Amino acid sequence: MPQTDLLDFFENPNPERDYKINIESPEFTCVCPKTGQPDFAVIKLSYVPDARCVELKSLKLYLVTFRDEGHFHEKVTNMIADDLIKLLDPRSMTLETIFNVRGGVYTSVMVDHSK
Amino acid sequence: MPQTDLLDFFENPNPERDYKINIESPEFTCVCPKTGQPDFAVIKLSYVPDARCVELKSLKLYLVTFRDEGHFHEKVTNMIADDLIKLLDPRSMTLETIFNVRGGVYTSVMVDHSK
Amino acid sequence: MPQTDLLDFFENPNPERDYKINIESPEFTCVCPKTGQPDFAVIKLSYVPDARCVELKSLKLYLVTFRDEGHFHEKVTNMIADDLIKLLDPRSMTLETIFNVRGGVYTSVMVDHSK
Amino acid sequence: MPQTDLLDFFENPNPERDYKINIESPEFTCVCPKTGQPDFAVIKLSYVPDARCVELKSLKLYLVTFRDEGHFHEKVTNMIADDLIKLLDPRSMTLETIFNVRGGVYTSVMVDHSK
Amino acid sequence: MPQTDLLDFFENPNPERDYKINIESPEFTCVCPKTGQPDFAVIKLSYVPDARCVELKSLKLYLVTFRDEGHFHEKVTNMIADDLIKLLDPRSMTLETIFNVRGGVYTSVMVDHSK
Amino acid sequence: MPQTDLLDFFENPNPERDYKINIESPEFTCVCPKTGQPDFAVIKLSYVPDARCVELKSLKLYLVTFRDEGHFHEKVTNMIADDLIKLLDPRSMTLETIFNVRGGVYTSVMVDHSK
Amino acid sequence: MPQTDLLDFFENPNPERDYKINIESPEFTCVCPKTGQPDFAVIKLSYVPDARCVELKSLKLYLVTFRDEGHFHEKVTNMIADDLIKLLDPRSMTLETIFNVRGGVYTSVMVDHSK
Amino acid sequence: MPQTDLLDFFENPNPERDYKINIESPEFTCVCPKTGQPDFAVIKLSYVPDARCVELKSLKLYLVTFRDEGHFHEKVTNMIADDLIKLLDPRSMTLETIFNVRGGVYTSVMVDHSK
Amino acid sequence: MPQTDLLDFFENPNPERDYKINIESPEFTCVCPKTGQPDFAVIKLSYVPDARCVELKSLKLYLVTFRDEGHFHEKVTNMIADDLIKLLDPRSMTLETIFNVRGGVYTSVMVDHSK
Amino acid sequence: MPQTDLLDFFENPNPERDYKINIESPEFTCVCPKTGQPDFAVIKLSYVPDARCVELKSLKLYLVTFRDEGHFHEKVTNMIADDLIKLLDPRSMTLETIFNVRGGVYTSVMVDHSK
Repeated sequence: MPQTDLLDFFENPNPERDYKINIESPEFTCVCPKTGQPDFAVIKLSYVPDARCVELKSLKLYLVTFRDEGHFHEKVTNMIADDLIKLLDPRSMTLETIFNVRGGVYTSVMVDHSK
Repeated sequence: MPQTDLLDFFENPNPERDYKINIESPEFTCVCPKTGQPDFAVIKLSYVPDARCVELKSLKLYLVTFRDEGHFHEKVTNMIADDLIKLLDPRSMTLETIFNVRGGVYTSVMVDHSK
Repeated sequence: MPQTDLLDFFENPNPERDYKINIESPEFTCVCPKTGQPDFAVIKLSYVPDARCVELKSLKLYLVTFRDEGHFHEKVTNMIADDLIKLLDPRSMTLETIFNVRGGVYTSVMVDHSK
Repeated sequence: MPQTDLLDFFENPNPERDYKINIESPEFTCVCPKTGQPDFAVIKLSYVPDARCVELKSLKLYLVTFRDEGHFHEKVTNMIADDLIKLLDPRSMTLETIFNVRGGVYTSVMVDHSK
Repeated sequence: MPQTDLLDFFENPNPERDYKINIESPEFTCVCPKTGQPDFAVIKLSYVPDARCVELKSLKLYLVTFRDEGHFHEKVTNMIADDLIKLLDPRSMTLETIFNVRGGVYTSVMVDHSK
Repeated sequence: MPQTDLLDFFENPNPERDYKINIESPEFTCVCPKTGQPDFAVIKLSYVPDARCVELKSLKLYLVTFRDEGHFHEKVTNMIADDLIKLLDPRSMTLETIFNVRGGVYTSVMVDHSK
Repeated sequence: MPQTDLLDFFENPNPERDYKINIESPEFTCVCPKTGQPDFAVIKLSYVPDARCVELKSLKLYLVTFRDEGHFHEKVTNMIADDLIKLLDPRSMTLETIFNVRGGVYTSVMVDHSK
Repeated sequence: MPQTDLLDFFENPNPERDYKINIESPEFTCVCPKTGQPDFAVIKLSYVPDARCVELKSLKLYLVTFRDEGHFHEKVTNMIADDLIKLLDPRSMTLETIFNVRGGVYTSVMVDHSK
Repeated sequence: MPQTDLLDFFENPNPERDYKINIESPEFTCVCPKTGQPDFAVIKLSYVPDARCVELKSLKLYLVTFRDEGHFHEKVTNMIADDLIKLLDPRSMTLETIFNVRGGVYTSVMVDHSK
Repeated sequence: MPQTDLLDFFENPNPERDYKINIESPEFTCVCPKTGQPDFAVIKLSYVPDARCVELKSLKLYLVTFRDEGHFHEKVTNMIADDLIKLLDPRSMTLETIFNVRGGVYTSVMVDHSK
């Protein structure tokens, strides 16, 4: 299982204002649960923090723990969204995973959340 | 006729949340019903699943069965939309077919559906 | 005068649904009414059909009949829009003409129509 | 001062319809009022005509008369907007001036107007 | 600390009209407070002036004073926004800082403000 | 087998001069001999004619006859090159087939020929 | 026939030096000799002048006279090349015509000449 | 160690002709030998086959076996080149690895080989 | 006449090595000698210095003095090349002027010089 | 002065083969020796190693030491080239510095070296 406990946060330095933080990691990889072959994706996260901001290095290390995990596209996107919502309880959040082409087909999954 | 029975689905792993799945297949080909010559298109599907998600490989195999079918642009787009709405009963769906240029003219057809 | 009678239509195969048809022709040419020199434009048509869809080849042949016509940018755009609205009586329509640069100046004209 | 009297118009051929005219001139140059050195900008004009349309060549010649004028970015944008609003009394208008980089800084100014 | 007193303004030449000023500086650099290594960002500022407009050269010189400052991405964005809001009291303002990739991760922070 | 007899030529109108003809067809499709699934490719042909030029429509119809053929990438490229060299006996020729991604891997094959 | 007599030249102002002049016209149109339908192309001319340079406006007017001419791609390219070589007797010249897609096939023709 | 025995080949179907095969895999990942963190790269292979061609799926599976390997950029590139040269003994070959940015620095390594 | 005396140079700091300096100014403007209307161009200069390097600000000020000069494209390019060759006596030099489109025609002029 | 002693190397793992290493750092900044204002550049290094390869992190730290240095474009490029040639004694090397626009003028300097 991915190591959720690697995720860390710091106090939002400006909680009195609504502002948006965008993070993009083009280096996400996990394993196809059917074929055992690697899958690759770009992760795009965008959120308005409430009391907490995600610490960037901890997010990177957390995403690396999916490297040997086998999950479907829809599942893995919702898992990451759930972990970040639980950690940050953000005012609003969007998470998108854009997977590399497989069998001539391109797929992405996008989750929207607001308090 | 295209083989609708090839289409398969799996249970939506997160039905309690509205999220969007985007799928793009740049390898759609059918036959012009007037000239018998091949037509080529990019298929773009975007939907918010309810109880069901379309299984990607089954979607690919279903789209391949249009290879020898002769249909007008407007008809083929509505056919695919109808088949996917019947299979998935999605909360909302957009289907767009972007055909290659013919006679110096570019055409695309876009269907929007919501429950 | 452009030959409006060249325009042809076919019955909308799915009139019970609102869907959009986009057509782009990058090969429109007419003549500048002032200088007699050729003008060039891209024509972009987008509409939601009601009972009728424009037949693509007939649209192309109709546009070719502007080849020796002298019209200002604003006039020619409204003429084509009027002809297509009369032919199709669409639920909604957008027509844009994007002319090539003249005298270091780029111009386009865009007409919106809805029933 | 720029020669406003160079600006000319023609009667809107379709005043019964709201439609949009977009004009772009990438060749605007004036002089920095501080340094005396040339400034360069792209002018983007977009408007819905009422009774009058701006004549393109007259617009070009009018813009050329800024060539030796010294004005700040914010001022010159509002001057051109004022001259065009006075000439055309449009239903709505947007004017944007996008200046070339100076001191590593890019600037643009955008005016919106509606009747 | 960054030198806020370097920031200067001039009187809005057209306060009776709402218009937008966009400024982009691709040459912002500060220092990572953890590693002491340089960070690089693009600054995008967009505002509707009320009584005051920021003087471009003063903005540039102010941004240069962050060169040896160590601040987190979220903090530095809110600091610059606060300084500009205090100086200009604009009708509305957006400030975005787009940082260069670090550890394979891209980050940007965006602040919206309106009176 | 592909129908080589569909290929037609016309007399080179300027055989006394070396000049180059470039032809690109982004709509080539055949079948994977292993899986039976469709493959897609862009065909790029470039040649200096001697006595003969390939007739464009005949080339298109010939390429369509690969639609149900099962061949490996390397084989199909050499087959088309051989057919065109036999038909045209060109002074020189380059043929490239650029296949769509399969299994995350992009492939192209390029044949050079000169008299 | 195209009006070769429209072509005009001026004396090369620096004949003692080899330098290159590049000219591109994206607005060439003629007629397909088979179907009577319009063809469109970009003309690219590049040459090292000897005693003469082609006058730009005369080149434009000459190219316009192909508007109602029916010629194959290979023929029309060689015709224009011959006319320009006869007019200019350049030290070297390249002429390329890049035609718009027809039947899903892109074509260009390129002539090289040197003294 | 990467599993070289996964690499497979097939007989070159046209050994009498020099032709080029280009293969690109944007999904290469290994591990940094210093930090233990994942590295990502695009692999570009281009070769003129002699008696043998590399089988695409076997190449993909071989590249996947670097997933948990720790190697420096320069070493890993030379290792893959050596394995492919030993397998194929090609007439000529180029192998390039283009690594993702690390610490604000982009790196690629390129090996050329000919018989 | 353009003010050649504005051009200044500094001593090449590394005359013992051949190295290349590239300079691009997208803000060149002069006047068409026929119509009196402004022309715009991008200037690209590339040279290997011998004893002297052109001082950048002086080059900029020199280019500004063409602002009210009327010269043909071919002439102005050779004039600038001559002035720079006289000033710098470079080991080699290329100067290209890329003019904005006029009458639907794009033009550039390129001069090569070597000692 | 920049700290040349920060530069480190490792033994070339494949000295028996000529291969190329490309490194790009888009985050170089130094100070203009005239104005004291920051300059920004992209550094592109490409070399064929002999006995030594530059260690990437040491190269990055070395480049950071130019942050407060005032040097002209031509000088700084030759300085970095000299330091790397002294460190690596490469079979061949190219170093290019591409500076950000100043006063509307873009500049780059490129040094080639071979043993």
